[in-house]
Amino acid sequence: MTNGFRLGIDVGGTKCLGVVLDDAGAVIDEARQPTPRGPGSLPLLIDTLAAMVSDVETRIGPVVTVGIGVPGLVTYAGVLRAAPNLDGVADFDVAGLLGARLDQPVRVDNDATCGTLAEWRLGAGSDSDDLMLVTLGTGIGGGVVAGGALQRGAHGFAGEYGHMVVDPDGPPCPCGRQGCWERYASGSGLARLAREYAVGRRVSRVLELAGGDPESVRGEHVQAAAREGDHDSLRVIDAFGRWVALGLVNLTNILDPDLFVLGGGLAAGSDLYLGPIQRWFGELLYQPDLRPHPRVKFAEFGERAGAVGAALLHET
Amino acid sequence: MTNGFRLGIDVGGTKCLGVVLDDAGAVIDEARQPTPRGPGSLPLLIDTLAAMVSDVETRIGPVVTVGIGVPGLVTYAGVLRAAPNLDGVADFDVAGLLGARLDQPVRVDNDATCGTLAEWRLGAGSDSDDLMLVTLGTGIGGGVVAGGALQRGAHGFAGEYGHMVVDPDGPPCPCGRQGCWERYASGSGLARLAREYAVGRRVSRVLELAGGDPESVRGEHVQAAAREGDHDSLRVIDAFGRWVALGLVNLTNILDPDLFVLGGGLAAGSDLYLGPIQRWFGELLYQPDLRPHPRVKFAEFGERAGAVGAALLHET
Repeated sequence: MTNGFRLGIDVGGTKCLGVVLDDAGAVIDEARQPTPRGPGSLPLLIDTLAAMVSDVETRIGPVVTVGIGVPGLVTYAGVLRAAPNLDGVADFDVAGLLGARLDQPVRVDNDATCGTLAEWRLGAGSDSDDLMLVTLGTGIGGGVVAGGALQRGAHGFAGEYGHMVVDPDGPPCPCGRQGCWERYASGSGLARLAREYAVGRRVSRVLELAGGDPESVRGEHVQAAAREGDHDSLRVIDAFGRWVALGLVNLTNILDPDLFVLGGGLAAGSDLYLGPIQRWFGELLYQPDLRPHPRVKFAEFGERAGAVGAALLHET
Repeated sequence: MTNGFRLGIDVGGTKCLGVVLDDAGAVIDEARQPTPRGPGSLPLLIDTLAAMVSDVETRIGPVVTVGIGVPGLVTYAGVLRAAPNLDGVADFDVAGLLGARLDQPVRVDNDATCGTLAEWRLGAGSDSDDLMLVTLGTGIGGGVVAGGALQRGAHGFAGEYGHMVVDPDGPPCPCGRQGCWERYASGSGLARLAREYAVGRRVSRVLELAGGDPESVRGEHVQAAAREGDHDSLRVIDAFGRWVALGLVNLTNILDPDLFVLGGGLAAGSDLYLGPIQRWFGELLYQPDLRPHPRVKFAEFGERAGAVGAALLHET
């Protein structure tokens, strides 16, 4: 463990969330600022981050390290190559620009990689050497720990599970391909499944909760109806669990982890999904009777995972 | 490097192939024996392996280590849990039984994991810290090197790429699931693609080479016709390259290797496939313009890869 306070900031599409960890890894301070939006806002992001560091230091004293989590493809040098949820990003040198401003080295990595680090070092995965974090939110992201080490890949881009193709004739993905896993197993995938079921007067309770328009159906409506015991909604949840399991099975056949940590917005409905996911996992895995199945746990850090992991980046 | 001769034996469905490596990693001796077949033959396998060790030592003197590659799921303790191409295997303790017979520790691992080790340490991947071996044969196997370490997974079962599901409504796989990658991108997958094209008087040259019966079409017939410039066969090769690329893209999105080493029986037709594979790879990868694409090389060790890697097992 480092001696001194470690600051991590997670840059999201709407807000920047900062946390300060003490020597023991406990969060002792938190800060939030809106993420600058709109054309030309990118340089303002560096101003925002520098101001957050300065505010924190005014409040609690100097921090020994600064780490930043950002959404998108990040190189080992801390350059953000592209970020679908930030405006105008193309080879944006976050580490270089912020490091120069602060006059200290800044580490930058992908937000899901940071989340993986947080859950592995201090959270749900602290007992594992071979885990995969899978964040099920609007899309799917993740990170890999294998053989007791965080695996970023040759260029820093490992963990883009969401664009694993699970059906080459499947629905179009904003990324330009078809049938990416995140078209099925994410929050938007759950809503899409529910809308498909909603045709032909099924899932009427879901439709009711969504105000009657199939196009307004969201994942939360399915979850709410399923919690009321609505049979059709439970079928949608089962179909969703099958798609989640399918991707987890692929990851298991490839890397054989002993633990999946599921995070992201959908973790909130975890009690509904876990049973279907585990049942389908056993159906779809290669040689399911001859091997231990990986455990499935839910992330412990919630929305703070990226910031906590960013605070740990200097120790990897 | 170890001092002294290292023996590795690769147990295949039809033959056991042994090699001896000297200190520099050169193959200085080779041995072959038929793999015992049929019900009740399993104990004979230990006899065969022990006899091969003894014969080698009679010929060249003592070997310092013995490693064995076997097809199937192998635990860290060297127990073969199941092997589709060997008769009657269920928790067969190869390491324990052969070790007791030889009175020395024996390391045992999956044949494709051994092949990965061979190509990484001494072959096509010796310049990489992040490579994936993909063997395209009757099925698909492989192994993972990530972050400069061989990754076997939590239980030793990493690298079963062949059963990654790439189309949940695809053709049945002998493993019991549907749409596994090896239904498409293996030797049998190429033949299946060609048979599909052969309906309706297409791929007539392939049919001719196969003696006129679509059911007799094999991958070799497609390759032979394609080498003659047959247009329909080149279309089959292109479709095949798309399926190979799809799986490689999934692996890249997950682990971001800088190198794929392709091995297995299909490597022989590599000049035909490489172009289509690389073109489709660029079509299917997430953010293809923003990242270096992994190199694709063909394995150097051919049929000896498993044996050479087995000889290196004691050094991992």
